[in-house]
Amino acid sequence: MVENSGFETQNVDFDAAGRRSVELLDRTTARLVGVRPACEVVQGIGPRHFLHAGPPIEMDEIPGPMRGALIAGLMFEKEAHSVEQAEQIIDQGGLSISSCNDAGGAGPVAGVVTPTMPVVVAETSTGSLAFSPLNEGRGRVLRFGATDSATIERLSWMRDELAPLLNAAVSATERIDLTSFMAEALRRGDECHNRNVGVSAALLLRLAPPIIRTARTSDAAARALEWAGGNPQFFLSFAIAAAKAIAREAHNVPGSPIVTCVAANGIRIGIQVSGCGDEWFVTDSPLGNTKISDGYTIDDAQPALGDSFITEVVGLGACALSAAPAISSFLGTSQSDSENIVETMRRVCAGTSSRFVIPSGGYVGTPLGIDVSKVVSAATSPIVEYGLAHKRPGIGQIGAGLTEVPMAPFEQALDQLKRRRTKLVSCAGNAC
Amino acid sequence: MVENSGFETQNVDFDAAGRRSVELLDRTTARLVGVRPACEVVQGIGPRHFLHAGPPIEMDEIPGPMRGALIAGLMFEKEAHSVEQAEQIIDQGGLSISSCNDAGGAGPVAGVVTPTMPVVVAETSTGSLAFSPLNEGRGRVLRFGATDSATIERLSWMRDELAPLLNAAVSATERIDLTSFMAEALRRGDECHNRNVGVSAALLLRLAPPIIRTARTSDAAARALEWAGGNPQFFLSFAIAAAKAIAREAHNVPGSPIVTCVAANGIRIGIQVSGCGDEWFVTDSPLGNTKISDGYTIDDAQPALGDSFITEVVGLGACALSAAPAISSFLGTSQSDSENIVETMRRVCAGTSSRFVIPSGGYVGTPLGIDVSKVVSAATSPIVEYGLAHKRPGIGQIGAGLTEVPMAPFEQALDQLKRRRTKLVSCAGNAC
Repeated sequence: MVENSGFETQNVDFDAAGRRSVELLDRTTARLVGVRPACEVVQGIGPRHFLHAGPPIEMDEIPGPMRGALIAGLMFEKEAHSVEQAEQIIDQGGLSISSCNDAGGAGPVAGVVTPTMPVVVAETSTGSLAFSPLNEGRGRVLRFGATDSATIERLSWMRDELAPLLNAAVSATERIDLTSFMAEALRRGDECHNRNVGVSAALLLRLAPPIIRTARTSDAAARALEWAGGNPQFFLSFAIAAAKAIAREAHNVPGSPIVTCVAANGIRIGIQVSGCGDEWFVTDSPLGNTKISDGYTIDDAQPALGDSFITEVVGLGACALSAAPAISSFLGTSQSDSENIVETMRRVCAGTSSRFVIPSGGYVGTPLGIDVSKVVSAATSPIVEYGLAHKRPGIGQIGAGLTEVPMAPFEQALDQLKRRRTKLVSCAGNAC
Repeated sequence: MVENSGFETQNVDFDAAGRRSVELLDRTTARLVGVRPACEVVQGIGPRHFLHAGPPIEMDEIPGPMRGALIAGLMFEKEAHSVEQAEQIIDQGGLSISSCNDAGGAGPVAGVVTPTMPVVVAETSTGSLAFSPLNEGRGRVLRFGATDSATIERLSWMRDELAPLLNAAVSATERIDLTSFMAEALRRGDECHNRNVGVSAALLLRLAPPIIRTARTSDAAARALEWAGGNPQFFLSFAIAAAKAIAREAHNVPGSPIVTCVAANGIRIGIQVSGCGDEWFVTDSPLGNTKISDGYTIDDAQPALGDSFITEVVGLGACALSAAPAISSFLGTSQSDSENIVETMRRVCAGTSSRFVIPSGGYVGTPLGIDVSKVVSAATSPIVEYGLAHKRPGIGQIGAGLTEVPMAPFEQALDQLKRRRTKLVSCAGNAC
């Protein structure tokens, strides 16, 4: 459906290329395939090869929370029986890592995915797949770098009982269109990044009958709904998997200046652009302007980390912030701040969503399709939501808020896009 | 807790009386007791004595939708096996009726309650009970006067399977504070009158584990959650029962000008006032300004009917309209209309809710405690939401919107309050 090589293009209309990406972001639907062990959907993952969030990073430069998550991952996979043993494996080069994004996934915060970890799988109508690890809830969790036994036990229960139950329920039910749930989220006061409480309940209620009917015991069904029902961020994994699948569909449109990925590894934040192939444009991760939990300061925080900015790529999160007024107490913002942020995003986006609409804003769609040329010409950084992890392994989340994505990656991408366009035009002219 | 006889009062401070009612409306919590057959909680109800919405009405003046609901009620109770047989019973004086409100309940639309009909029961911390019939969903339903077999069958299933399951689940779970759910509703884009979709999901998800654990079969549990999960107004009965219990608590404060009931029977709309005992102040039911469903006109509509205005009495519904932006497509209003309506309600209310807050409005509480003296002095009618029934029996809902409550009952109530106050003061002075 999407051409993969710009060099075959004879007549390149760059505005049309951008519109095409936005159209794909706007019209692509994503259905819920299931909740599967990562190794069933990710090639190359294994007991000694994990995935991580953000642009590629070397093992010797990974930040604390990611190190914590890798340690927890080794223990979860029973490759190590203690933190010390896991650290030894890492320090002796016994574990390799690669970017979750490059494998077609998106992992919040540390984004660490291990082979038996349950991942939510979404698929577009034309077959683009994407995945995201099943959300563990808030507090001390692997994705924020926690390594305690409760974290490992919870994740093991999710793998052994919850995920198979969810997967069976999805298989037993009619097509679940995640994009419809994302649209409904905005009517229920969520924006699908830091607030998912209403849409989580909606999805779980939809899954409850098939969960009950397919569970081996009623107690297992009750436990699953009890735990998931108590996790206000349960839907986040589903939103991210769907968003990633949609963004992949809009990727590789020759000449298109639309951003199809924003992701950070805690050291660098990077973007990918539809017309620039799989190249990453990176700069230092920002710390942002964040509400820090009591007992911590901004000095304790690891700069931005995670792949959940993919929600902003498809017009949710900060693009839909004013649809979620109750998020303001969590982010430390006001409703007029939220409206201003949405307007800022309009200035850097090429289009407007036709399906993600803000009821309080007269049902106008959210800004859609971050456009590197608009970002640079308006000298306006896109704004994204994020959660902040403590910079030391094993502690967890200490804040959440909003941050600007620094300008540098957009400038680099625009330069590269111009070079590619020149090449495209000259190839087209010379029939190379 | 609340004095029932003003004549014992020695020193009557009327401002303090109003404040006391508002305080009771604001602070009283209501827990969910269960979902029971009406005959277990209502005295005097029987196979030939039903309850109806609004102020008392004679059988020979009841409107079409209420007649439809009584016919359906007789068939549901197996007192009649056809519409004709039920009509005969009614026309030959074989059925008596009395106001649901006077029995401590509140019934939406026709408000018909029959002895085996399942009712949601709420109780305040000091023991005031109230009830409301379990919501049947939208469309052709008894409360809008439908008499078809699908209506009777659905209600029979609700009585025989759903309600016992809900009741067992409530008994098996920790205290469910309905007022917390009502507060949460406003964070999820609901206002607890015409929009309850987010809070319905929240309550059902809370009840799902005990439903699963107490159901005789997993299929019964799945059916219950499937049906209730598909009813966006499921929570309305719970909101109404809680609101009625809270309003009863604020009633009978000597000298208090605060409205504790607004209810309509399709012919007359009436109010009750805290300091005026159980007296009704009534006038003709308004038709209001309403979005009518395709295929019908305002001429087809029965004027306002039902007890669900009790939600406005406790600071929800129209008082919380701007917390529910997505209701505008249903009511045919805009967000700024909603904000204006909330501001109108502030002008006629004596207080502000401390727990029902509007996140998009800077977490300011909803207007609380409709004050007859403010209504009259500001010459401003309170605004309430409502659903409109077709005026002929058996058709059902044809619209929903907003209506002003006419001024006359407030003027009558204020006069009566002044007479009672004079009596109170003179009694106090003469130590009578």
